[in-house]
Amino acid sequence: MSAYEALKSSFHRIACLDEASAMLGWDAAAMMPEGGAAARGEQLAVLAGLSHECLCAPEMREQLARASAPEGWDARNLALMREAHMRATALPRDLVEAQVRAGRACETLWRAARKESDFAAVREALAEVVRLTREGAVILGEALGVSPYDALMSQYQRGINAEQAEAIFARYEAFLREALPRAEALQAQRPQAALPPGPYPEAVQAVLARRLAAGAGLNFNAARLDVSAHPFCGGTATDIRITTRYDEADFAAALMGVLHETGHALYEQNLPAAWARQPVGMAAGMAVHESQSLIVEMQAVRSDAYLAYLAPLAGAAFGKAITLAGLKHRLRRVERSFIRVEADEMTYPAHVLLRFRLERALLSGDLPVVDLPGAWNEGVQALLGIVPPDDARGCLQDIHWFDGAIGYFPSYTLGAMAAAQLMAAAREALPDLDGALGRGDLAPLTRWLAEHVHGRGASAGFNELLRDATGEALNPAYFEAHLSARYLR
Amino acid sequence: MSAYEALKSSFHRIACLDEASAMLGWDAAAMMPEGGAAARGEQLAVLAGLSHECLCAPEMREQLARASAPEGWDARNLALMREAHMRATALPRDLVEAQVRAGRACETLWRAARKESDFAAVREALAEVVRLTREGAVILGEALGVSPYDALMSQYQRGINAEQAEAIFARYEAFLREALPRAEALQAQRPQAALPPGPYPEAVQAVLARRLAAGAGLNFNAARLDVSAHPFCGGTATDIRITTRYDEADFAAALMGVLHETGHALYEQNLPAAWARQPVGMAAGMAVHESQSLIVEMQAVRSDAYLAYLAPLAGAAFGKAITLAGLKHRLRRVERSFIRVEADEMTYPAHVLLRFRLERALLSGDLPVVDLPGAWNEGVQALLGIVPPDDARGCLQDIHWFDGAIGYFPSYTLGAMAAAQLMAAAREALPDLDGALGRGDLAPLTRWLAEHVHGRGASAGFNELLRDATGEALNPAYFEAHLSARYLR
Repeated sequence: MSAYEALKSSFHRIACLDEASAMLGWDAAAMMPEGGAAARGEQLAVLAGLSHECLCAPEMREQLARASAPEGWDARNLALMREAHMRATALPRDLVEAQVRAGRACETLWRAARKESDFAAVREALAEVVRLTREGAVILGEALGVSPYDALMSQYQRGINAEQAEAIFARYEAFLREALPRAEALQAQRPQAALPPGPYPEAVQAVLARRLAAGAGLNFNAARLDVSAHPFCGGTATDIRITTRYDEADFAAALMGVLHETGHALYEQNLPAAWARQPVGMAAGMAVHESQSLIVEMQAVRSDAYLAYLAPLAGAAFGKAITLAGLKHRLRRVERSFIRVEADEMTYPAHVLLRFRLERALLSGDLPVVDLPGAWNEGVQALLGIVPPDDARGCLQDIHWFDGAIGYFPSYTLGAMAAAQLMAAAREALPDLDGALGRGDLAPLTRWLAEHVHGRGASAGFNELLRDATGEALNPAYFEAHLSARYLR
Repeated sequence: MSAYEALKSSFHRIACLDEASAMLGWDAAAMMPEGGAAARGEQLAVLAGLSHECLCAPEMREQLARASAPEGWDARNLALMREAHMRATALPRDLVEAQVRAGRACETLWRAARKESDFAAVREALAEVVRLTREGAVILGEALGVSPYDALMSQYQRGINAEQAEAIFARYEAFLREALPRAEALQAQRPQAALPPGPYPEAVQAVLARRLAAGAGLNFNAARLDVSAHPFCGGTATDIRITTRYDEADFAAALMGVLHETGHALYEQNLPAAWARQPVGMAAGMAVHESQSLIVEMQAVRSDAYLAYLAPLAGAAFGKAITLAGLKHRLRRVERSFIRVEADEMTYPAHVLLRFRLERALLSGDLPVVDLPGAWNEGVQALLGIVPPDDARGCLQDIHWFDGAIGYFPSYTLGAMAAAQLMAAAREALPDLDGALGRGDLAPLTRWLAEHVHGRGASAGFNELLRDATGEALNPAYFEAHLSARYLR
């Protein structure tokens, strides 16, 4: 067996361990009784430890040194193996353990601090997390030949860096300054058209959600839909587990949630099966993943054509007068608000932009942790013209930094922008796309995405993927055009 | 860290891997969409491989040689570690692989052969499985200093051997010859009292089953009840997963099934937490496990007192006239029949006895595989006075031998007998046991079992456990007395 074949076999095994962890993670969120939590923690720790051990094994270092794969997917696969091994071994073990400990301690303090809106209670712990994250980022950056922040960012999404992201975000900032007041003014002139009050029975929502997900292309012979406190898409390519939560007063939230996760699920289901469990056969990154959930939820499902299909269907399912106008009122409104996860698609990037800039400044040391609340509030005011009344609705709202995740935030908005760009290209390629959407049929769109995105696995980075699929690297003009068409007319 | 401490840490890790496998196995049976089967097979194979690798690691051999634990549970724990390591390493790798391959091939042929009632189609494959099982049993027997059959039997239940089992089974054969016709005659004289016809809605059955299981002591903060094609008890001590299947024409089957699995679950839930994930902290064996499911299902739940509690409760739940007489008619009848898994508690041991004798003869070579169908049919006739009309209802009915499991069958009846003996001792210790059963309350019984069985983990073998709990080794007189009281009066 060649060194490269041996590596493929090791990565296959690592992927199986990670799949087992993914399944147990799903179970913990969707099925597990409370009493199982401690044992589950142990099981996941052992699996993660073994996966990491495989990745760091001395044989692997030696095989990576000897292996060759001159071109194509094999060459890319080998490069991704080298990167994974490097990331797993670059940091001293003491540092990794200190990072894990600091992240856990900080996250625990953060939960209480958010409840009390008491930033001071978590300030020192966060400073320690930032310090240790910086220490690791410097080492990784040197090994990869990039800046510390880019070293972190690239573990979530390869093929686009912070400088490129900043240029794109800055342009969006200018767009938003002009667009948001206009959208609000137009909205204020429009007649109100609320949806009828609930209850919308959970069981009916679930049936409708399954029907729409299946119409979007989700294969339920290889997927489940369940309930969890925090909706997500887990599992593996041939056994996808998506979750949602139901609110009987508002059917739209669960439905949009399911369709969002369906976008993630379609990506996983359509990954190149021939490369399953190899690094190159996996998804291309978190921004690309987010583009796939958002192209379904925001681009396809919230389109005029699809909502016109959905309104009578939902009306019949719930036995209520659900109008297209009512759906649009519920699903297509802009609003300046404090909480990122509740934001509409136009203001959402402002939340991301703020976090992206602040986390870069935290990492570089330009922004001391003690100054974070002030910088946050100034930033929100500058971007959205509102000031958070407390830190719980300000810099304490997201878990990310407190558990040590820095570099993830830009993925959300890069994904939203990529979704708009991909949708524009799909529209070009599929002249009757709106006709299909008007029948609740996402198959043509999904086929196009399977060819241009899903089926490519991790063979290309963010901008390369977009360039091949749409003819150009990320261009925020598509997202602006999408928002203008939807909110400024 | 001492060698023994290092071993404890390795066995902790192995147990975590096995727990992960148990959870994924439950998921495969109760949750997984069809499409996930192939990936799940890979995941389980990798986990089993890693678990086996840990058990066979050269460090472990070396640590076992150095380790010492002079007395008590630690000494027993170390002995069980040594045995597990020995069992994992005694067989040449080629033989183990050949066994797995032969078992898989034979099981596949068996599925078709059973459908067609065509023993010839699986004969050669079974001969190969028996040959390879014998080869392994001889090696294990030499390593353990016991006969080949005892080497197999002891992997399911330690502390009782085939010679002891045969003496007990021979005595039961004599009892049955006399008791079965008497029971049938008494039964024929009794007035018929059928339960009302269904439907018994699945949802109502499930609520009632949960209520009864909780009343039996199952803690649903650390357990789930779901549906699977083949009911079982899986999961781990703090996260038990029991399954059942519902038939809307007959609520009794699912209910008894749930209570049977509840007996298994209570055992797991009450294992000594301080020894969790150590060999000595696990269940004492399959016969002891079966005694715990049967003491709940057969001894406690099918008692007069409990059925008198159940009848009005079930009647109210289903809104039907469910009488005590009807329940007794459904749940307490003897009948000569061909299929083991459908047999009543009096004739069930005949099925086991037959298999026990035949599998010993197969393993020794006294019975050539080609002669199995004839020997089977003669055996059924001798024991029950009926002759299977075909091999599907004869020697093809059980999966056990065809997938390579020899030595397991005696556990069923040793468990049934132990259940009767334990119940007699519990009755002595708990004068108002029937009063509690009459309120659907198994807590006093469960507390007694927790002290005398569950909490002892694997610190004692079968007969030692019984001796400590009841004052004597397995004595079939208790089972005979139980059957006589229930069926011969």
